[in-house]
Amino acid sequence: MTGVGVIGYGYWGPNIARNVREQPGGDLVAISDLRPQRLIDAASRYPGVKATTEMREVLANPRVDAVVIATPVSTHYELALEALRAGKHVLVEKPMAMTSAHALRLMEEADRRNLVLAVDHTFVYTSAVRKIRELIAGDGIGDIYYYDSVRVNLGLFQHDVNVVWDLAVHDLSIIDYVLPLRPVAVSATGLGHVTGQPENIAYLTLFFDAPLIAHVHVNWLAPVKVRRTLIGGSRKMIVYDDLEPSEKIKVYDKGITVNGSEHELSAASTPDYQMLVGYRAGDMWAPHLDMTEALTVEMRHFLECIDQGRQPIADAASALRVIQILEAASQSLRQRGRAIELHAERRVA
Amino acid sequence: MTGVGVIGYGYWGPNIARNVREQPGGDLVAISDLRPQRLIDAASRYPGVKATTEMREVLANPRVDAVVIATPVSTHYELALEALRAGKHVLVEKPMAMTSAHALRLMEEADRRNLVLAVDHTFVYTSAVRKIRELIAGDGIGDIYYYDSVRVNLGLFQHDVNVVWDLAVHDLSIIDYVLPLRPVAVSATGLGHVTGQPENIAYLTLFFDAPLIAHVHVNWLAPVKVRRTLIGGSRKMIVYDDLEPSEKIKVYDKGITVNGSEHELSAASTPDYQMLVGYRAGDMWAPHLDMTEALTVEMRHFLECIDQGRQPIADAASALRVIQILEAASQSLRQRGRAIELHAERRVA
Amino acid sequence: MTGVGVIGYGYWGPNIARNVREQPGGDLVAISDLRPQRLIDAASRYPGVKATTEMREVLANPRVDAVVIATPVSTHYELALEALRAGKHVLVEKPMAMTSAHALRLMEEADRRNLVLAVDHTFVYTSAVRKIRELIAGDGIGDIYYYDSVRVNLGLFQHDVNVVWDLAVHDLSIIDYVLPLRPVAVSATGLGHVTGQPENIAYLTLFFDAPLIAHVHVNWLAPVKVRRTLIGGSRKMIVYDDLEPSEKIKVYDKGITVNGSEHELSAASTPDYQMLVGYRAGDMWAPHLDMTEALTVEMRHFLECIDQGRQPIADAASALRVIQILEAASQSLRQRGRAIELHAERRVA
Amino acid sequence: MTGVGVIGYGYWGPNIARNVREQPGGDLVAISDLRPQRLIDAASRYPGVKATTEMREVLANPRVDAVVIATPVSTHYELALEALRAGKHVLVEKPMAMTSAHALRLMEEADRRNLVLAVDHTFVYTSAVRKIRELIAGDGIGDIYYYDSVRVNLGLFQHDVNVVWDLAVHDLSIIDYVLPLRPVAVSATGLGHVTGQPENIAYLTLFFDAPLIAHVHVNWLAPVKVRRTLIGGSRKMIVYDDLEPSEKIKVYDKGITVNGSEHELSAASTPDYQMLVGYRAGDMWAPHLDMTEALTVEMRHFLECIDQGRQPIADAASALRVIQILEAASQSLRQRGRAIELHAERRVA
Repeated sequence: MTGVGVIGYGYWGPNIARNVREQPGGDLVAISDLRPQRLIDAASRYPGVKATTEMREVLANPRVDAVVIATPVSTHYELALEALRAGKHVLVEKPMAMTSAHALRLMEEADRRNLVLAVDHTFVYTSAVRKIRELIAGDGIGDIYYYDSVRVNLGLFQHDVNVVWDLAVHDLSIIDYVLPLRPVAVSATGLGHVTGQPENIAYLTLFFDAPLIAHVHVNWLAPVKVRRTLIGGSRKMIVYDDLEPSEKIKVYDKGITVNGSEHELSAASTPDYQMLVGYRAGDMWAPHLDMTEALTVEMRHFLECIDQGRQPIADAASALRVIQILEAASQSLRQRGRAIELHAERRVA
Repeated sequence: MTGVGVIGYGYWGPNIARNVREQPGGDLVAISDLRPQRLIDAASRYPGVKATTEMREVLANPRVDAVVIATPVSTHYELALEALRAGKHVLVEKPMAMTSAHALRLMEEADRRNLVLAVDHTFVYTSAVRKIRELIAGDGIGDIYYYDSVRVNLGLFQHDVNVVWDLAVHDLSIIDYVLPLRPVAVSATGLGHVTGQPENIAYLTLFFDAPLIAHVHVNWLAPVKVRRTLIGGSRKMIVYDDLEPSEKIKVYDKGITVNGSEHELSAASTPDYQMLVGYRAGDMWAPHLDMTEALTVEMRHFLECIDQGRQPIADAASALRVIQILEAASQSLRQRGRAIELHAERRVA
Repeated sequence: MTGVGVIGYGYWGPNIARNVREQPGGDLVAISDLRPQRLIDAASRYPGVKATTEMREVLANPRVDAVVIATPVSTHYELALEALRAGKHVLVEKPMAMTSAHALRLMEEADRRNLVLAVDHTFVYTSAVRKIRELIAGDGIGDIYYYDSVRVNLGLFQHDVNVVWDLAVHDLSIIDYVLPLRPVAVSATGLGHVTGQPENIAYLTLFFDAPLIAHVHVNWLAPVKVRRTLIGGSRKMIVYDDLEPSEKIKVYDKGITVNGSEHELSAASTPDYQMLVGYRAGDMWAPHLDMTEALTVEMRHFLECIDQGRQPIADAASALRVIQILEAASQSLRQRGRAIELHAERRVA
Repeated sequence: MTGVGVIGYGYWGPNIARNVREQPGGDLVAISDLRPQRLIDAASRYPGVKATTEMREVLANPRVDAVVIATPVSTHYELALEALRAGKHVLVEKPMAMTSAHALRLMEEADRRNLVLAVDHTFVYTSAVRKIRELIAGDGIGDIYYYDSVRVNLGLFQHDVNVVWDLAVHDLSIIDYVLPLRPVAVSATGLGHVTGQPENIAYLTLFFDAPLIAHVHVNWLAPVKVRRTLIGGSRKMIVYDDLEPSEKIKVYDKGITVNGSEHELSAASTPDYQMLVGYRAGDMWAPHLDMTEALTVEMRHFLECIDQGRQPIADAASALRVIQILEAASQSLRQRGRAIELHAERRVA
């Protein structure tokens, strides 16, 4: 039984507390928040749990083995560092920190102390994204040609981070999890429409050392909500629509043929004669997806990693890689799309 | 009654011939194509019309006042130039030419000879796009914040032009027609997946001297067909889905409020205190659209311009502006998204 | 402040308890359920509230002014009757009773004791259905021609009632609320696919003393979930899709014209010459709907009715009318669609 | 090479003429229509074909082996009879005649003369319906529980037949083709909204000597166009949406379990203990459908049947069965849904 403290009981905290409580291996011990009203709510919901405005009381509690940090992004680094120094395993909301230097520092601290440090890349724990990874890894899709995501809606404007750090972080964590390659450069364009506020619309392109391209469109100012990803492969193509209630993933047996044979990149390297590009279309298939809440899967996984001393799927290294891309994207945004290299030493394997 | 010759009777030519025939002011006189089989089809469909493999016979025909050129892009410039020199009014399929130099040359030739030179930017003649222009011009939308278009499907791969020249040209012509401002720079990223072939997926960002951004996603290798444009304004927002059978345009009375008042950019220029961004949502409205085929409207307009000596809506100048952007986009594509300026002298008013 | 007891803490009970608690005028006093585990959940969620397996303790509690009954249908009559006899105001889940005789008996008991007796016809408290009623009453739709509803999904099979009593009851309560006329006869067809179990698919037609028809399709064995109602009027037509996240109601300015004028029934009563039926199509409009949870609106309304001695919108009379139709439909089902009259004396105004 | 005459060149005739012309085995010989303007169109489209206002000239033409009748329904019987008597093979638009007596008479005449008599039940020649038949016959779906179709749109009001004869005929021909059983009774309800005109909205239920039910909703006065059929089986379920551009058929691996085993009717015949109905959900699959125009398949089939002396898929017997149901439905409509038996002698095997 792992004792867990929840730091931050705002929008996401109550979901975390509920999921800790529902895990057989989890013991919800303490909750902290700076706002007394939030603590009153927490106390009435979880009568036996220690509720406090003092985060340090949570860290000092010997029954607390691990903490989950669900506070504003700007506070993640200091709170997580303090928790690690207090010897607690840590799960931090995404993004793990505001800079890659901070993320690296947390990763090193956890490594040195042999503690589990996980980041709340929620989507990698959904059955949809796990199925996509399985399809790609199992070679059902063939060579991956592109990953294209649209993640737009009206609101919520953030004050401290731009739309890339708020929404594109989801796609970057998915890309990190499902694609077999790491990006080598980023180009980003975008705009803020409220003076003095960060960008509310942005477009990211990720380049790879391969004929693969990824693109993400994020927007806080769209009239409709869209969560749709297209993944093109040499054999099959995937449409992942997260707003579909049940058939979230559709696999299309469609593609091109070059000179009559199903297109594989290796077969196409004969530029000296005229290519004849044809099209083929077959069945569409929507695999059944298990409906377990992502946060339940994630919390169970976090507790298991603590129990068994394993690295989590969404570990500090993946958090760092994502933050490096976010930093490069912000830099590219300021230069109207100039590609920013993700230097080899910066690219964490 | 204007005598019309059709040069090129492939995919689009038959639609043009039919629309010329159906116009009270149009007299379908001659059709040329290099392929005898196409001419046999043309002759059996239009018994009285002169069908020939010799384009020059069409130009030499004194009953031909105007020609419509529906041939591969690479031939547009020479054919159009020859037709203008023969004193014919000209309507050319999009894009008008392969280079802005050629487009400029055609524009000058038409100007000197006082001939109508039109480009087949079909979408600006659809009721949907005309309604969007009317909504924006009538100030129902407010300040325009962004134009975002997705135009993807499986096929048809072109050999002579990339996906930008093939598909994005539609969006660029729509942007040229409906937005009150001209872009000042372009960033483009993309990739070709068949060795030796042009890019089949691309992303364009257009920058403006205003808090306005435009983005276009074009893709020949998508599992599903999408034709969807989001237009965000300070008062209302538009979703234009060209695949909808009837409600192609939906106007959403949605937006943000800054410090309690409906957001206008002028009101937002007070960066010294904390902005409070709120959201408002009202009715949605889908205006009824007239169902006349765009090509019918376009052909009628072309004949009227000839008759009355007027400039067409999609004139040579708009064709040139679009081609300048296409050129800059191709240049940016080769530099992984570096923004290419559309120099003032290059920007045709 | 009205003291409220909740009888039955299964699927719907927790929602009721939460909504009582959230109302300024409601005081959640007691909860009863036969299953101890449910009471443990209730007690931990609402520490100060009296939780008991003895429904009579709730009724005996002097702080309880009103009870909400959320138990299986077969128990509604006896529990509601006992509660009324104990002098409590009552809100019963739908359908209010298993027979119209029982419903009538409850209505009389409440009338005699001057107590509020309401039925949980939840949909009449949704903003969508209230908007439809407003549109029809305000004459924006014209004469109503038909009401057509599809309410199908996979599961949940009930053992004690058939699909008509389980699902069609929603449509019948909506029809009762929004249409200006009462049905005079019912025809129903359907089938059960599991031996010994009630019908799981059924079709109801309601006849009126007017050129108006209503039809309801309910099905527990459908591969997809559908909640879609079409309402045709002489001026406009409504599509109400309850699964749409925001634009649940779309109003189409479409219809027919007879001999050139917009069709009104009175104008059409000239059968002696040839009718020319034409079609017209105008704008579509989706009114903004307030997002308050229906149960919140309903609970507030119930408490206000108690406070002010008013009849609720979904009163015992509407419950009785709905049950009379359910009874007639079950009778028609056994006779393969023979129309069953809803006799005048049975039709409660 | 079979010489074909087309009788009636209105809405459907031009499609027929084009498809005859495009068949290698078909020789378009003559076209008749009472309206001279239609013949002018036909003549300019098909210069070598004999165009006449005299249908008898078509029948007298020795080069004409077969005729296709595409005239108003009320003329089908007389024209088809005359054509058969002239020794011509006949394909008639649906429904084949206005009464089952007439249909029977035509069937007998064709039998006696050993001529092919086919009816234009177009849908049975679509790849979607052929795939559904194949899935049902191949036992992939299990026992069929229900067939539920919605076929609604705005217009076109017919003057001579009601909406059942105009639209439901499509579903009845599909049901006749894909279901393994024949209906034994019909219940129909509906209404006409224009005085003196036939019903424009109707609901049909078909009963079978099995736990199978079919239902069809047809409506000329709907704000949106819907063409959607649900087919429930004991193993899988089908959604057939004819308006989908490509995935018209979706097969859902969903259903119920009774006492833990996948539900088959035979297994469920144990009413003496409590049934436990559960639900299972698996993958969804959309088979690729060949895109050949249905009329092309149909015309090829008609010519092959003539050539090889075979019975067509949509033969006179199927036309007769469909008309018997239409007659019974019209009778039931007048009696507000009373079930009308399809007597054994009337049911053509």
